[in-house]
Amino acid sequence: MFKKQHPPPGSRPGTYVPSPDASASVVTAIWYTVDEVETAKISDLSELNRYRDQEGVLWVDVQGLRDVGVIERIAQTFSIHPLALEDVVNVPQRPKTETYDEHELYISRMVKLGEQRKVEIEQVAVLFSREYVVTFQEQPGDVFDPVRERIRQRGSRLRESGADYLAYRIIDTIIDHYYPAIDGISEALEALESRVMNHPTPRTLGEVNRMKQTLLDLRRGIWPQRDAINALVRGDSEYVSEPVRMYFRDSYDHAVQITEVIETYREITAGLFNTYLSVVSNRMNEVMKVLTIMASIFIPLTFMAGIYGMNFEGMPELRMWWSYPLLLMLMAIVAGGMLMYFRRKGWLGNADAEQDGDVTKNQD
Amino acid sequence: MFKKQHPPPGSRPGTYVPSPDASASVVTAIWYTVDEVETAKISDLSELNRYRDQEGVLWVDVQGLRDVGVIERIAQTFSIHPLALEDVVNVPQRPKTETYDEHELYISRMVKLGEQRKVEIEQVAVLFSREYVVTFQEQPGDVFDPVRERIRQRGSRLRESGADYLAYRIIDTIIDHYYPAIDGISEALEALESRVMNHPTPRTLGEVNRMKQTLLDLRRGIWPQRDAINALVRGDSEYVSEPVRMYFRDSYDHAVQITEVIETYREITAGLFNTYLSVVSNRMNEVMKVLTIMASIFIPLTFMAGIYGMNFEGMPELRMWWSYPLLLMLMAIVAGGMLMYFRRKGWLGNADAEQDGDVTKNQD
Amino acid sequence: MFKKQHPPPGSRPGTYVPSPDASASVVTAIWYTVDEVETAKISDLSELNRYRDQEGVLWVDVQGLRDVGVIERIAQTFSIHPLALEDVVNVPQRPKTETYDEHELYISRMVKLGEQRKVEIEQVAVLFSREYVVTFQEQPGDVFDPVRERIRQRGSRLRESGADYLAYRIIDTIIDHYYPAIDGISEALEALESRVMNHPTPRTLGEVNRMKQTLLDLRRGIWPQRDAINALVRGDSEYVSEPVRMYFRDSYDHAVQITEVIETYREITAGLFNTYLSVVSNRMNEVMKVLTIMASIFIPLTFMAGIYGMNFEGMPELRMWWSYPLLLMLMAIVAGGMLMYFRRKGWLGNADAEQDGDVTKNQD
Amino acid sequence: MFKKQHPPPGSRPGTYVPSPDASASVVTAIWYTVDEVETAKISDLSELNRYRDQEGVLWVDVQGLRDVGVIERIAQTFSIHPLALEDVVNVPQRPKTETYDEHELYISRMVKLGEQRKVEIEQVAVLFSREYVVTFQEQPGDVFDPVRERIRQRGSRLRESGADYLAYRIIDTIIDHYYPAIDGISEALEALESRVMNHPTPRTLGEVNRMKQTLLDLRRGIWPQRDAINALVRGDSEYVSEPVRMYFRDSYDHAVQITEVIETYREITAGLFNTYLSVVSNRMNEVMKVLTIMASIFIPLTFMAGIYGMNFEGMPELRMWWSYPLLLMLMAIVAGGMLMYFRRKGWLGNADAEQDGDVTKNQD
Amino acid sequence: MFKKQHPPPGSRPGTYVPSPDASASVVTAIWYTVDEVETAKISDLSELNRYRDQEGVLWVDVQGLRDVGVIERIAQTFSIHPLALEDVVNVPQRPKTETYDEHELYISRMVKLGEQRKVEIEQVAVLFSREYVVTFQEQPGDVFDPVRERIRQRGSRLRESGADYLAYRIIDTIIDHYYPAIDGISEALEALESRVMNHPTPRTLGEVNRMKQTLLDLRRGIWPQRDAINALVRGDSEYVSEPVRMYFRDSYDHAVQITEVIETYREITAGLFNTYLSVVSNRMNEVMKVLTIMASIFIPLTFMAGIYGMNFEGMPELRMWWSYPLLLMLMAIVAGGMLMYFRRKGWLGNADAEQDGDVTKNQD
Repeated sequence: MFKKQHPPPGSRPGTYVPSPDASASVVTAIWYTVDEVETAKISDLSELNRYRDQEGVLWVDVQGLRDVGVIERIAQTFSIHPLALEDVVNVPQRPKTETYDEHELYISRMVKLGEQRKVEIEQVAVLFSREYVVTFQEQPGDVFDPVRERIRQRGSRLRESGADYLAYRIIDTIIDHYYPAIDGISEALEALESRVMNHPTPRTLGEVNRMKQTLLDLRRGIWPQRDAINALVRGDSEYVSEPVRMYFRDSYDHAVQITEVIETYREITAGLFNTYLSVVSNRMNEVMKVLTIMASIFIPLTFMAGIYGMNFEGMPELRMWWSYPLLLMLMAIVAGGMLMYFRRKGWLGNADAEQDGDVTKNQD
Repeated sequence: MFKKQHPPPGSRPGTYVPSPDASASVVTAIWYTVDEVETAKISDLSELNRYRDQEGVLWVDVQGLRDVGVIERIAQTFSIHPLALEDVVNVPQRPKTETYDEHELYISRMVKLGEQRKVEIEQVAVLFSREYVVTFQEQPGDVFDPVRERIRQRGSRLRESGADYLAYRIIDTIIDHYYPAIDGISEALEALESRVMNHPTPRTLGEVNRMKQTLLDLRRGIWPQRDAINALVRGDSEYVSEPVRMYFRDSYDHAVQITEVIETYREITAGLFNTYLSVVSNRMNEVMKVLTIMASIFIPLTFMAGIYGMNFEGMPELRMWWSYPLLLMLMAIVAGGMLMYFRRKGWLGNADAEQDGDVTKNQD
Repeated sequence: MFKKQHPPPGSRPGTYVPSPDASASVVTAIWYTVDEVETAKISDLSELNRYRDQEGVLWVDVQGLRDVGVIERIAQTFSIHPLALEDVVNVPQRPKTETYDEHELYISRMVKLGEQRKVEIEQVAVLFSREYVVTFQEQPGDVFDPVRERIRQRGSRLRESGADYLAYRIIDTIIDHYYPAIDGISEALEALESRVMNHPTPRTLGEVNRMKQTLLDLRRGIWPQRDAINALVRGDSEYVSEPVRMYFRDSYDHAVQITEVIETYREITAGLFNTYLSVVSNRMNEVMKVLTIMASIFIPLTFMAGIYGMNFEGMPELRMWWSYPLLLMLMAIVAGGMLMYFRRKGWLGNADAEQDGDVTKNQD
Repeated sequence: MFKKQHPPPGSRPGTYVPSPDASASVVTAIWYTVDEVETAKISDLSELNRYRDQEGVLWVDVQGLRDVGVIERIAQTFSIHPLALEDVVNVPQRPKTETYDEHELYISRMVKLGEQRKVEIEQVAVLFSREYVVTFQEQPGDVFDPVRERIRQRGSRLRESGADYLAYRIIDTIIDHYYPAIDGISEALEALESRVMNHPTPRTLGEVNRMKQTLLDLRRGIWPQRDAINALVRGDSEYVSEPVRMYFRDSYDHAVQITEVIETYREITAGLFNTYLSVVSNRMNEVMKVLTIMASIFIPLTFMAGIYGMNFEGMPELRMWWSYPLLLMLMAIVAGGMLMYFRRKGWLGNADAEQDGDVTKNQD
Repeated sequence: MFKKQHPPPGSRPGTYVPSPDASASVVTAIWYTVDEVETAKISDLSELNRYRDQEGVLWVDVQGLRDVGVIERIAQTFSIHPLALEDVVNVPQRPKTETYDEHELYISRMVKLGEQRKVEIEQVAVLFSREYVVTFQEQPGDVFDPVRERIRQRGSRLRESGADYLAYRIIDTIIDHYYPAIDGISEALEALESRVMNHPTPRTLGEVNRMKQTLLDLRRGIWPQRDAINALVRGDSEYVSEPVRMYFRDSYDHAVQITEVIETYREITAGLFNTYLSVVSNRMNEVMKVLTIMASIFIPLTFMAGIYGMNFEGMPELRMWWSYPLLLMLMAIVAGGMLMYFRRKGWLGNADAEQDGDVTKNQD
């Protein structure tokens, strides 16, 4: 269920309420030029001023949003507008690109495959100008380590480009994290499909509904990012240089493709309810067939036996020696006739075949 | 069900009919500059002229729309166009922004969580120019008290800004009231989901339909406000200054996010019908299984007993001492065979397991 | 079902075929200036020329489209283009605004609540320039009487405005007639909902389908009028003066609101089918429970009785004095066990409670 | 099912393959000025050159697309581009307007009501410049005879206008042929609705599906023609004169109206499946009620009879003279109690009433 | 299920990972002018430089994407941008047109009908400037052989046109390959429809779901190609000359038509689930009718027999000679009455007729 941190209605704009289960804020900085790299874990926030004023590209990464004081100091350092800060801190916000006087703000939603293939969604805010990038992550994590690795490699394109290219690499990494998530969902979907075919209970349907919900969450995560990246591609922002725009176009294509795959999965999931209904009604059908066959064969026979269980005195056939075997034969004929009738209708034996059918033959 | 006050077709435009259950009109005024604040409960409406003509920001708040005379006087004081007045008084109107010669009219729909988490929707009309704001509330209430509180605080941004910023704070408060409402709905939805799983009756479905209706009402309340606020953001209005536009952009984002959450809830609610169908058909299945098992076991046995209840004289087995125990053994074998057949099909015991399954195991 | 008067394919454009059940054409004229009003029932159509050439506003109202001669004379008098005439006479046309050389043509669809709350839809064509308005109504009726009344009142805005304001008042009257219609539908919908809950038969579903159809007809009536009025608001037409545009904007808002209410009703109606399915399947469930309980209790008992109805000689228990009461006790225990099993499952008594539940408890 | 003539992939553009069941090509020409008309069945195609070079309007009508030679000669005569020719011959194409250097190509789909109200769809290509119109019809037919008739009448607007007006008349005739088709479908739909109510079998549902398909085909025929005509209205084409544009606007309105009626029919058809489900489930309900009533009444009675069919010696009641009539009375009371229970539930008699209900009472 | 080659998130843009089951890369070149043609299987990639620098049109075809080295050499030869290369190699990409400095990149998805009418989808990338075309095919195949054939024919339009026309012919060939695929699907759909009517099992429904999936895949293949081709038609690209644009317009029409046919098939497939439900519920109905008829006839008769199987002494009718035949007659009357009742309801015999009905009569 959706839970958003929101201050009480009527509060001053820019008010923020850290979530009670927010992580402690940890700040790290990377500063680099073509020739130099410096990485630092920042505990004294005034150090940031020094980095900010130096020539080169500065990346400040904030993990965890609990410490209001830390975040306010960073906001002062980089002159972040109160409304921008509200978007950064009151998670989750809808992904978007917003242009402020001194920088661009990109709000994104990142997915991670957690334990048991559970999809976890987290907000990452990327604030960038030509000289610096500030990222705010809801949860601590190592998703940007490959980017840091490349920064440390002398001669990499990152080292030779500006902060806009770094922002691109970060955003691209966020988008690309959707691929392993949809791989995981693809497998979960196949397992779910087989469960619906073989053990359809309302619980299975509950899983189908949860799958639907997960896909909807993913869609709400990636869909607005498409538009947000497109705003960067179209050249609305002065903080993105021309060559980097082409790279963002590539991220845009990825976002579109991910959206389409999610749509496909949503259609498959919707189809699972039909399959469910069909398997359940097939089982009901089988139950009814068994009942009908048993009842249709034995009820008439019981009636025949009932006739000769009557105590009338005027029943001469009771005394004939051949009447008992004759009746038994008659009963056999009636039962056989019913069986043939059911076989002709295809209700006999088939019931099992069909049942097995949907368990095993659909596996291929 | 929708009930709108509408004058008889063919009436003069601007005709208005107060609803029979409208509240009495209570007028309060707040006038402030950077240095001064004056709050007054207005009983003599000519006082308003004095406030209006003073330098400073004037906020006139009208609660309750019953008194036609009061409202007409206010309309004269602020030169409200008859069509604008019609929109204010004939509630509910569709939320919108309309530009008139001397002011902007913002029609909004506000939600409140009433008793038993019932969502109540009410129209609030906000009329604002650069010097004054006039608000018309359908029902008396204290929703704007936090704003009044801030006005009274010397040095607050409200005191230092114009009427457009006050209008923004009022509209923002209205929008932000949707958050507690959707929190309440989120909880109601979870309770409803569990009821559908465990006690699916047509009455539960009635609740699902009412939930659907509530969500539709909320959507119709917030969706057009998105467009109305966007008109203010885009700069169509001369009564909104540039810095305040950016604040409205923030309100717009909130409106978009609320819309999306409502859409998600609508999808979940739609899925509840599928769950309902599935739980009901599962129960039917279980009922049929019990019937089929009982009938399939005992009908053949009854037939066998019926055979030896016949009164034929030529039934030598009746006289053998071992035939009765033999028959009992045969019956036990038949019954056991049927039971094994049903166990192999998974109909036995499972029935209960499945039933319990959807009651308890789905809770996690 | 849709029935449109259409000439055979390949006919000359402007060909028209009066419907066989069209009403006789009755022509009335109202001519007025600020100071004078003249009302006349026109039998000699040449009188119209005199009115047309006088200074002032002329409103010619044609009720009933049967008399081709009359309509052709009016077309000549006001130089109506053959294609415009085709739209006026071959009813129903899709609502629209069309600009011709000498006037504007507004095709609308008006609704009336007939007997037994049946919605009746009728085409009204409004042709207007700055000097005259010509209206063509399919059926005779008194819907425009309030407008005529206002014209007769000296000093009303109508008397002081041009023909465009008269056209506005006529079109506004048409739009406002949708409000009583949707009020009527609202009540019918509530009655239908209760019928679906309590007496769901295919006939009830037939009524649901008819309701759906009525709402679709209303939607097709109001939806394109929205666009048609919007064309007048946007200022495409030279025959609408600036102040009157603002009035049309009000009509546009009404049309939008009516559209939304109809959409809401359509969603409610669509939900009725789900409710129907649910009530029906609940009843089926109840039927099956009764059968299963009866059969499960008595079939085993009958079998037990059958055992001791057998005529074996070697059944020593038949001769014990205590075996008959013992068997009866055993039977009571079996029956009681079954009852407890069913009560534990919640099938007992509940069946009735649930049934009553959806009849009475849903009423609130 | 869709069957399109398509050359093997990779063929030269403009390649065409006449369908094996195409009709032989018959060419007729009408040439006219204000004063003269000439009609000719063309067997020697070089005659066309003579007509083409004369002052006046030339209409060449080709019926049947089998003779590649004939069509190629006509293409040479009127300089038809290979791609245009491909569209004309490889039927069906999607309706569209295409502008070529020397003429406009309008591809349309015409409907005819065949035998047994079966809808037949055929492609008609209309190629027109200011001097000539060339029409290509898939099947021979007399649909354009009313147009030819008007051409022969001296003084008709056709005789006084150019080839663009002739093209309009031809296209208008094609569009207007949809009206009789939808009249036919309207009747078929009513018959189908009654069949679904009274004899719902999977075969009836097959008819519903076929109806759906027919409506989809019609929609695919008319929908793109709307756009194609609109392109002519908007004035994109230099071959349509200003006064003729207004006529095309009329055709456009017809196309829009036909589209809307088809949409309505599609909604009705979709609703038929719901009705079907409801009628079927109602019948099932009735079947189950009969079974439940019969079984619930007689199974307990049979059990009671079974008790006294037991052969215990210790059953003193067997010897009382009053016990037999007492048991019979008891049985009557039990049976009567069950009947009252079922009547109270409304299962008795109602079953029939409901069944008759949906057969007869829904007819009105 | 969707499987895309994607490098780990955070990788350098342009990183590519050949799929483990990619085919070995085979490079062939065709170079031609109006007078000359040269075809060569390229093993030494430096030969390409020679061809590239010669006057004339060069077509390099790469089949199989396994050999990273080969592809990188080609990328160098034709200065392919790293992002373009990523799109070419990391299959599948969404179809699109992208403009780079020296050439246009067209990413398409081609379909082939494999064994057992299975649809196989493969990416083909077409990179073209005015002088050369480079195609990258995922799988080796002979789909472009007809184009190569035409190049070898002296005097063909291909020989006389530039590389843009060659690109058109290749893209047109890709689009036209959808026609045989949808022909195959049309047949599969008919077979499936008949299977749903006659043997509806959950397995059949699984096939319906797979068909839905295939159609969705096809739609995702052709839909974005529509837009991609439209970008070429609209003249965004400097590498497409004016006359070739008109040819692309033709391909665009084909893509639109294929899209529409696929949409129709999707609607038919969606309808199959309804048919399935209906056939299954009809069969259930039939099963229930048999049970109800058997039980309703024999249960009362058994009860009557049970009465006279009781051992009361006070049953005088047991001693009358006429009471046994009278009871038999009574039983015959009861049974006959039930049969008549069921016949009147239309349950008798009909059951079979209906069953046969949906098997045979629907075939026409």
